[in-house]
Amino acid sequence: MTAPVVAAVVPAAGLGQRLGADGPKAMHLLGGEPMLVHSVRTLAAGPVDLVVVATPPGLGAEVLAQLAGAHPGAELSVVDGGATRSDSVRLALAALPPSVRVVLVHDAARPLVPAALVAAVVAAVEGGADAVVPGLPVTDTVKQVDGADVVVATVDRSALRAVQTPQGFRREVLDTAYAGPESGTATDDAGHVERAGGVVVVVPGAEEAFKVTRPLDLVLAEAVLAGRRQAGG
Amino acid sequence: MTAPVVAAVVPAAGLGQRLGADGPKAMHLLGGEPMLVHSVRTLAAGPVDLVVVATPPGLGAEVLAQLAGAHPGAELSVVDGGATRSDSVRLALAALPPSVRVVLVHDAARPLVPAALVAAVVAAVEGGADAVVPGLPVTDTVKQVDGADVVVATVDRSALRAVQTPQGFRREVLDTAYAGPESGTATDDAGHVERAGGVVVVVPGAEEAFKVTRPLDLVLAEAVLAGRRQAGG
Repeated sequence: MTAPVVAAVVPAAGLGQRLGADGPKAMHLLGGEPMLVHSVRTLAAGPVDLVVVATPPGLGAEVLAQLAGAHPGAELSVVDGGATRSDSVRLALAALPPSVRVVLVHDAARPLVPAALVAAVVAAVEGGADAVVPGLPVTDTVKQVDGADVVVATVDRSALRAVQTPQGFRREVLDTAYAGPESGTATDDAGHVERAGGVVVVVPGAEEAFKVTRPLDLVLAEAVLAGRRQAGG
Repeated sequence: MTAPVVAAVVPAAGLGQRLGADGPKAMHLLGGEPMLVHSVRTLAAGPVDLVVVATPPGLGAEVLAQLAGAHPGAELSVVDGGATRSDSVRLALAALPPSVRVVLVHDAARPLVPAALVAAVVAAVEGGADAVVPGLPVTDTVKQVDGADVVVATVDRSALRAVQTPQGFRREVLDTAYAGPESGTATDDAGHVERAGGVVVVVPGAEEAFKVTRPLDLVLAEAVLAGRRQAGG
């Protein structure tokens, strides 16, 4: 087996409070399988050589068992995750072998990300970008409010992108960004890179890479999955 | 019949380019019925006395026929719409009888808006607000990009709301806002009020009031509707 060059990190240690699930959000079932299984299967189907999942501490063996068979094209390993998403990513980065040059970070809660989007993000980093995020135009009108929910401004949405994952990075760029002091304000990995002064490029995202956060997202995810299974035979 | 006090305007003259439909977007089928029918039915089920639909010019009679039976609790009328959404709203406003004091404006493309949200918006205006918009917190990370799709900033989303319809207004407030010069920049009705210096308040929106814009939205809408029909018997 050749040493892995492209790795994907999946922080999956968090609890899904907003979905009202009892267990970790990544373990929420979709079409009878945990969302994490769907995510890892897609990541492993393309140009990714190694998938590292940050699990709730102590649950690594259980997660590995769940993922057996879901990663035919890639190596798989687990690390104990941390208290925050950033901590989990940092711990997973530290576990990557030195051969890795390109790192993706993917939300387990975006289980239906198309394989073509994963490939496009890897290709953009291999093509020379330091940091790449998939993004879609914002379709709703967006307003900025004050503390009393009074509208302060309607935001010019033409320059806004709702960003998704996987986000892709040259390894040194992400390592450097995560080596800096924790500010606690970044809500995604590219945010760490931006804070460290790095250049982040947006590439076209995919509708199906939506995040399963609210109950209605799960309704959509089940419908999309049912459609795919029907189309697939 | 008493004179109508609460009216809802539905601009439905536009074409649904993004859905790839051939006809007007409002006529796109959902569960076998045009989206417009779903929207009008919900508006008419609550505190709305009169629904005015702005149709593609010349199609008023056809739309009235489609809506027969979908408005048991409210009067219904149609007006020829204009070239833009704003034009259509302006034309519908001009057609309202003088008794109307509260005006809602609702996107036909939000066919699954819950009746409770319609009632909440009317109640907020009747309770003294000049202008009310339903809004939800923004769940995706949002980035601002430059012309080359390079990230300029990650937006602080804590103060952002993705706004929906129906938006509700004291009639004089909306009339005044639409009487001003057309700037062409407002993407919603409250934007006209903001530009005229009015105060707009955000009330909690509803997930199911999402806008059907992209193909995946239609998948979700069909799934939600199927769930409702199953729950309803």
